[in-house]
Amino acid sequence: MNNALFSAMVAGHVPADLRIDNVRIVDVFSGGIRPGCVCVGDGRVLGFSRREARQVFDGEGRFLLPGLIDAHVHIESSMLSPAGFASLVIPFGTTTIIADPHEIANVKGVQGIRYMLEAARALPLDIRIMLPSCVPCLPFEDSGSALSAADLAGLMDDAGADGLAEMMNVPGLLAEDPEVWAKLDLARAAGKRIDGHAPLLGGRDLEMYVAAGVSTDHECSERKEVMEKLECGMYVIIREGSAARNLAGLVSLVTPENERRFLFCTDDRHAADIMERGHISNNLRLAVSAGLDAVSAVRMATLNAAECCGLNDRGAIAPGRRADFALMDDLENFHCEACWIQGKLAAQHGRLASPLAEADASAMQASVNIAPLPEHPFAVRVPSGKARVIGMRPHSLITDCLIRPVRTADGGEVRLEDNPGLLKIAVLERHHATGKCAAALLDGWYGLRGGAIATTIAHDSHNLVVAGDNDADMLTAVREEQRIGGGIVMASGGRILSSLPLPIGGLMSDAPAGEVAQRLRELFALASSHYHIRGDVDAFMALSFLALPVIPSLKITARGLFDLPSFRFVSVDAEQD
Amino acid sequence: MNNALFSAMVAGHVPADLRIDNVRIVDVFSGGIRPGCVCVGDGRVLGFSRREARQVFDGEGRFLLPGLIDAHVHIESSMLSPAGFASLVIPFGTTTIIADPHEIANVKGVQGIRYMLEAARALPLDIRIMLPSCVPCLPFEDSGSALSAADLAGLMDDAGADGLAEMMNVPGLLAEDPEVWAKLDLARAAGKRIDGHAPLLGGRDLEMYVAAGVSTDHECSERKEVMEKLECGMYVIIREGSAARNLAGLVSLVTPENERRFLFCTDDRHAADIMERGHISNNLRLAVSAGLDAVSAVRMATLNAAECCGLNDRGAIAPGRRADFALMDDLENFHCEACWIQGKLAAQHGRLASPLAEADASAMQASVNIAPLPEHPFAVRVPSGKARVIGMRPHSLITDCLIRPVRTADGGEVRLEDNPGLLKIAVLERHHATGKCAAALLDGWYGLRGGAIATTIAHDSHNLVVAGDNDADMLTAVREEQRIGGGIVMASGGRILSSLPLPIGGLMSDAPAGEVAQRLRELFALASSHYHIRGDVDAFMALSFLALPVIPSLKITARGLFDLPSFRFVSVDAEQD
Repeated sequence: MNNALFSAMVAGHVPADLRIDNVRIVDVFSGGIRPGCVCVGDGRVLGFSRREARQVFDGEGRFLLPGLIDAHVHIESSMLSPAGFASLVIPFGTTTIIADPHEIANVKGVQGIRYMLEAARALPLDIRIMLPSCVPCLPFEDSGSALSAADLAGLMDDAGADGLAEMMNVPGLLAEDPEVWAKLDLARAAGKRIDGHAPLLGGRDLEMYVAAGVSTDHECSERKEVMEKLECGMYVIIREGSAARNLAGLVSLVTPENERRFLFCTDDRHAADIMERGHISNNLRLAVSAGLDAVSAVRMATLNAAECCGLNDRGAIAPGRRADFALMDDLENFHCEACWIQGKLAAQHGRLASPLAEADASAMQASVNIAPLPEHPFAVRVPSGKARVIGMRPHSLITDCLIRPVRTADGGEVRLEDNPGLLKIAVLERHHATGKCAAALLDGWYGLRGGAIATTIAHDSHNLVVAGDNDADMLTAVREEQRIGGGIVMASGGRILSSLPLPIGGLMSDAPAGEVAQRLRELFALASSHYHIRGDVDAFMALSFLALPVIPSLKITARGLFDLPSFRFVSVDAEQD
Repeated sequence: MNNALFSAMVAGHVPADLRIDNVRIVDVFSGGIRPGCVCVGDGRVLGFSRREARQVFDGEGRFLLPGLIDAHVHIESSMLSPAGFASLVIPFGTTTIIADPHEIANVKGVQGIRYMLEAARALPLDIRIMLPSCVPCLPFEDSGSALSAADLAGLMDDAGADGLAEMMNVPGLLAEDPEVWAKLDLARAAGKRIDGHAPLLGGRDLEMYVAAGVSTDHECSERKEVMEKLECGMYVIIREGSAARNLAGLVSLVTPENERRFLFCTDDRHAADIMERGHISNNLRLAVSAGLDAVSAVRMATLNAAECCGLNDRGAIAPGRRADFALMDDLENFHCEACWIQGKLAAQHGRLASPLAEADASAMQASVNIAPLPEHPFAVRVPSGKARVIGMRPHSLITDCLIRPVRTADGGEVRLEDNPGLLKIAVLERHHATGKCAAALLDGWYGLRGGAIATTIAHDSHNLVVAGDNDADMLTAVREEQRIGGGIVMASGGRILSSLPLPIGGLMSDAPAGEVAQRLRELFALASSHYHIRGDVDAFMALSFLALPVIPSLKITARGLFDLPSFRFVSVDAEQD
């Protein structure tokens, strides 16, 4: 709503709060760039006419863009709290994100989402929360929490919830699963959006998915797929994450005729990666270097996202809209010199203007609850001597189910020292101390030698995953996880080599972004130097997806090995079911 | 909301209601045209995959467009009732209009708007009602009704009201008139749109106007004006009316980069003109003949309008959206072969599929209430012998204040027989029988000879205007207006030459569109053949704007001559004030 002061500033009766002089304004409406100034008052744009102002900022000829929008992101993947994440991305010019708190919801349920909503409210970054649609990802998963349509109902009305987050349960939607449709109906009845997640979906199934109200997809990887989704009226969100990097393959499909239907997102990126490459500014840089017109790229990150998300108060620099700006040195590298949010200088020279307060996360702590361990928690028995082994692939979340002969000791026990090239992996239920625990074998590609890695980031249920080449270090790592309340732990030779504590749900740190990024870099270096894991692989992310049973083929949960093609749990012994 | 039947049809479990085969689908998302079929069920698009259907329509290779949208129109200007208007435009492929019932509101107030809302509900054409923001246009106008913010409040919540119609009171907005701002606040508080009307507004005033929440403008006539309005974030609506024809001058400004910010409208067009040239299809035809890409033009008339107006359920052919289509023979002439609205064939071969019922208009009738006339109602006295005369300009609503010597009889009376080349014009208050009545002089350009014309269409107050070259015919015409309850009347030699009765508020006919158009054509022909008025001039529209005091310079109301530059009533005698 306008207020009297704002109107008086627009009219020029009282000085504006701020005038940004000497900038090249990127006009996403006309597609042009023009020199000028922008006046700001009450957190919004007054206009381009020169006005007296209480404060003047000299843009020194730089490019003034509308604040950048990430159309789909899991904050948790940064391993930072919402405040930490905001402090990291604002200096890159990001002012609004559409966040899906899917990970914390798997750990802490409604309470986790409320924590994110609460944390978001106190931050300058506008964090728009979408409600996780698929918690847990499968009915038999031992996640920390499960969210029914009824659970979401209470949150949908919350001013902070913008809609239903990525609907991954495509089979459930297509089969008209009542619980899935109850969630869809909830969003639609509230007049809110539904985001999609439908890799390679096409034909009548895609039509069903879109007709159900799903309006976006960020999982596209192929040209034909993009074209069909556009034709069906979906917005296509081009993702550039830490692992899933789709931009280079898709950006050439953007034309002046279809550009308005494309957005950008990051989906999953960790703190060190964002710090090094930038945030949505990285999508812009890559898109322009791939040949996309710079203003088109900017429009995808601003006006298009705002329109798609129904955020008509932003996405452009225009009278009455939020004064969210990114001041860029150029339109190639998109180096951000300064960032304003609602008219306040939020960052300059790559640094926050003022530190951001952490929200109270006490209810998110102490999330690692493991039952007393049995005597040999990681024992693996294969009486037949033929084992099902999880085969990892570099740069892929897909695994293979390998059948391998193994040497066994008394009772069929598989000792790693007798089986060079094999590792052990175990998943321990860690939310409700149910004692569920399973161990299995991992083939040697992963390369880990001389210790163990444990992590409480384990999609989507986020139980405790530990892998290593000896039981003792695996146990040491698990004990340390209990002590620090979750995170990433490296144990070697009976001691803790290094760790990144993630006390917020075992997923996020409350430390400053810089510290977390620095610690992550150390962990990556140790993984390579001490454990001899290939340097081009994210050792921790690879591990955290080995417990996700919805991706083919062989995965491990706290209930044992899961074979997706046959959709059943199987024994490590290949001769047994 | 989806229902079970719709889902079953999308999934292909039960036959679709309709399949339109063998069409070239205009894809406003990708900007392309592709051959295919479209399946429809429950009034919405199921998809492009081939499905069994209860009914199949062979498109014979024609172009299937989303239904066309008129972004701003006054139905009353067609002189047809809503049903008559719908019956006229649907065969041209129009399926949605954004209507401003400004004229009937000036006559009948809230009751008039409710009549339009009620009439709209029963029609296949989706008539979206915006609430008139400026009734009357000036505080001292003798309109039939005045609408305060409080009056509008009750209507804004009505499901049929989409927002606040063209805010013409720019000075009031800029001066922060509380009543104007109460209306703006009303729309914004309801999360609804505000349409604009701001010819040549620019600079800080334009910024104020946009910051106040006005999002569109259909009054642009100049390049610079268009560019500035785009930059400020306005949607620019390119108008092609019966009189105001802006398309040719503006369409070259549309580029692939800014195209999404342009829409089409007709604003004011009478029935005969629509029948002859088409409706929004006429805008498309003209735009393409002026060089605009055909798909861009279609997008302006469909997706752009839908996005601007927040009508996300239409504007494109895509799963889940309304099955509103226009089947065109080509993308040059845009001859419409068939039109579907919500999946039902609404028109084919230029004819409605089934007749539309008239809404009950009894409360809109008997709107001509004139007090008993004085003995010489059209007497004009100019004792000084120097008169202020209204000077008309061809093809313009602007008039001049001419100072002319006149011959006078006893008491200064101006007799037309003594002053060749002069005509008389009079305005009689006709809503509340207040007896207000004023007569003045009109220069000879208008050309009327041998009779009088009267009309109850007289913007914006719609009092009774009559002009002629003799008092007797003027009186005959006024008497006939009383008898028929409003409309257009031509009187000559003491008898009624012809008339078009407009019993609905003195503005609209309840006769079929074809009859009204035919009668209008007869009136035009008579104006030229019998009255010798220039054939290239709309004699009736010219007359109906002579009583609109907000357009410069000299106009006449029931209270007398009004001089806009000095913003005061003036005497016909140039020597008097």
